[in-house]
Amino acid sequence: MPDWIDRPLFEIAQALRKGTLTARNLTEEGIARHDKWDVKLGAYKTWDAEYARRQADASDAAFKANKDLGLAQGILFSVKDIYGAEGFPIYAGSPKRLPPEWEKNGPVLNKVRQQLAVIPGKTHTVEFAFGGLGSNPHWDVPRNPWDAQSHRAPGGSSSGAGVSLWEGSASIAFGTDTGGSVRVPASMTGNVGLKTTKGRWSTDLITILSTSFDTPGILAKSVSDISFGFNAIDPVTKASVSSAIETRDVSGIKLGITKDYFWDRCADDVGETVENAIAELKNAGARTSTIKIPEAGTSVQVWGEGAIVASEGYSFLQTRLPDWIDSLDPNVLSRMEVAKEAKTLDYFSALFKISKLSQSVHAKLETVDALAVPTVPITPPKIEDLVDAEAYKKNNLLALSNTMPGNVLGACAITIPAGLDKSGMPVGLQLIALPNREEELISLALGIERILGTPRDRLGTPPLGGRL
Amino acid sequence: MPDWIDRPLFEIAQALRKGTLTARNLTEEGIARHDKWDVKLGAYKTWDAEYARRQADASDAAFKANKDLGLAQGILFSVKDIYGAEGFPIYAGSPKRLPPEWEKNGPVLNKVRQQLAVIPGKTHTVEFAFGGLGSNPHWDVPRNPWDAQSHRAPGGSSSGAGVSLWEGSASIAFGTDTGGSVRVPASMTGNVGLKTTKGRWSTDLITILSTSFDTPGILAKSVSDISFGFNAIDPVTKASVSSAIETRDVSGIKLGITKDYFWDRCADDVGETVENAIAELKNAGARTSTIKIPEAGTSVQVWGEGAIVASEGYSFLQTRLPDWIDSLDPNVLSRMEVAKEAKTLDYFSALFKISKLSQSVHAKLETVDALAVPTVPITPPKIEDLVDAEAYKKNNLLALSNTMPGNVLGACAITIPAGLDKSGMPVGLQLIALPNREEELISLALGIERILGTPRDRLGTPPLGGRL
Repeated sequence: MPDWIDRPLFEIAQALRKGTLTARNLTEEGIARHDKWDVKLGAYKTWDAEYARRQADASDAAFKANKDLGLAQGILFSVKDIYGAEGFPIYAGSPKRLPPEWEKNGPVLNKVRQQLAVIPGKTHTVEFAFGGLGSNPHWDVPRNPWDAQSHRAPGGSSSGAGVSLWEGSASIAFGTDTGGSVRVPASMTGNVGLKTTKGRWSTDLITILSTSFDTPGILAKSVSDISFGFNAIDPVTKASVSSAIETRDVSGIKLGITKDYFWDRCADDVGETVENAIAELKNAGARTSTIKIPEAGTSVQVWGEGAIVASEGYSFLQTRLPDWIDSLDPNVLSRMEVAKEAKTLDYFSALFKISKLSQSVHAKLETVDALAVPTVPITPPKIEDLVDAEAYKKNNLLALSNTMPGNVLGACAITIPAGLDKSGMPVGLQLIALPNREEELISLALGIERILGTPRDRLGTPPLGGRL
Repeated sequence: MPDWIDRPLFEIAQALRKGTLTARNLTEEGIARHDKWDVKLGAYKTWDAEYARRQADASDAAFKANKDLGLAQGILFSVKDIYGAEGFPIYAGSPKRLPPEWEKNGPVLNKVRQQLAVIPGKTHTVEFAFGGLGSNPHWDVPRNPWDAQSHRAPGGSSSGAGVSLWEGSASIAFGTDTGGSVRVPASMTGNVGLKTTKGRWSTDLITILSTSFDTPGILAKSVSDISFGFNAIDPVTKASVSSAIETRDVSGIKLGITKDYFWDRCADDVGETVENAIAELKNAGARTSTIKIPEAGTSVQVWGEGAIVASEGYSFLQTRLPDWIDSLDPNVLSRMEVAKEAKTLDYFSALFKISKLSQSVHAKLETVDALAVPTVPITPPKIEDLVDAEAYKKNNLLALSNTMPGNVLGACAITIPAGLDKSGMPVGLQLIALPNREEELISLALGIERILGTPRDRLGTPPLGGRL
């Protein structure tokens, strides 16, 4: 029988309530996994086993007193180190600890902490979340477990999030997604990742990259676990172990298939892997409909012209954390500094164009259940190939090119593993849906997981190790 | 017995419900007043007596069918011509009619239209609401009824709002306030004006001057009528003719008195008029407490440095109404064009500084019921003295200097007549309170009106005429 930590969260939650499992035992499993794998994988910036045990004991005490505080009770959540999380320092990927005001729990983290979730540590991140590959010159970069020889990008900016799931030290990983920072690391590490609709979950007490596009999100080892995590954080009604989102049968779903933008930059093997997954879904009864979305490419261009993220991110640092600018990763600084010349009229004009493009795309998305496109068009590059600034820039833009439209166009989206590419690296199938359709999207993805299998079923075990 | 249109709105509303008055009769009174006075005063850009009669008849039909749709039913509201209002064209003070999309009712106007209020016309405005004096080169500028010889500024940007109340063709006038555009015309024409807290009332389908600071507001002939209008638009519970906001006794209220900023630029007679009114309130038992608010002056400086309103206003025109830029009033254009050089980092830095200044001022406002300061530090200038661009700029800045801090610092505020200055022009006492304390502020102002009298009691009748 597998360890508890490897089982579906709905099973774990039931066992915790039946008393066949304690939060402390589950946490000890997570700690043992961390002790075994973190040396190799290095998902965490900060890890605190003793604090995790105390949180687990508090959770068990509540269970004993017949207090069921919600689905998250006793479940292990890793937290990207740009979230404030009481009891932990915060670095946001910078070399210096941030002031204590940034250590407070924000509304999203509070949701699960009030349910007595267990937070064992905070995961690595690209400095202030501005980068899609996961690199960081100040701290160790988590290893992508799918390559035992080379150090390949774990994806970013939530660079430790997906890796923490392979360690087995967390069941749900909190990340944030401004241009793909949940979906890219989920795809590159072979996990499921959910990017929520802008504004649905509060970004308070998470350091700001972009007030226009920042969104909290979660990564997990299966769509089923994502459904569990989503229910814990954002229940339609009071969530319980028996109130999961329903699985939608694949037969009858309608996927929007695009050509051009999302495929143009795809490596052949990456594109084929996603095409094969879509073909399997069609065999299982999914219908497809070809849609032209020229707005995707335009939106990414417009976002650049207005220097939206650079302006919002750099002004956040200037006003809130000015002493953190000098030590910025040159790859972060050089892209943020374009803000210095940015004009307000260009900024507002870009935001306006984006709102028009969004309207136009939303009308098209109404005709399907979701767009089905590759999450990341390239195989995760080797960290050593990113030393050159131009190479970094090029790869970073490529890595984010298929996820950015989701942010710009105000969608919600999920990525699920489609298979492995020729390098043996995970490839993600991205499903993009209308704003605030998270429940429907998860329902759809649950049906797709029934056909494609869970990440573990579909991808097997990573060669570098992780979990069991 | 006075005409119905001159009586308090709570009396009118009761008579409409008792059947001793019909909306049609009330509307005919308003039309008769308009026919008599508009030639002299010129409050309206668009006037439609026939449409007003049809709206009144619809209102009466509902009363007859025992449908009480809310306080606004059958009451006359004039609407500043930057609001969309179905059935009327919109010019927003520009020489060209705006596209039909801008003619739709927005949420605030809808509130009273769903209650079958009567809208007889749309009042003049400074072009796109960017100016505090009321001048407009494209259309007639409403006369300030308090000077029969010279054409003095009616205040802006809601330049026809206060004048429509003196015409007697409306009981409540809808305006908007970005830097003082409700309070300045209310003060200059001897009316009561309420600026609501940013975000409390939606600005949808009102042309945008500043996304950061625009607020809808109302002007009326007494605080009691403001209370009525506020209840109609924003009822705490279901409003009725007997559910007015309570009058707070002046004895025991605590007014914050400032020196420096709000008084430094005051003409002697203006300052004395407000001081005398405050002295009367003290005689009636009001306590005062001196507060230093250096943030007021700083906030106005910061708002300028970041080119906040210019950037937001100009980008609105560029993206939504580009064909309206070439014909802009040179006094509007020259102040908006500074946006062309504005940098995003300065813009965000200014907004951040303002949020810090607001926090600091809010803590001080907690110690009193409201600040009591002059609404406008100068007598309404003669329109002929504003021809020179520099003279316009200087007077415009002066006119808005005491109201802008309320917008910048996120307060709500009300102005009530304090008396007449040496030129016989009305002077306003401004009460500034914490955000979202409108009910408390109106309650306080009702008590103050009990001591100072209604505008008509306190100021008498304007020499140019208006009403009876």
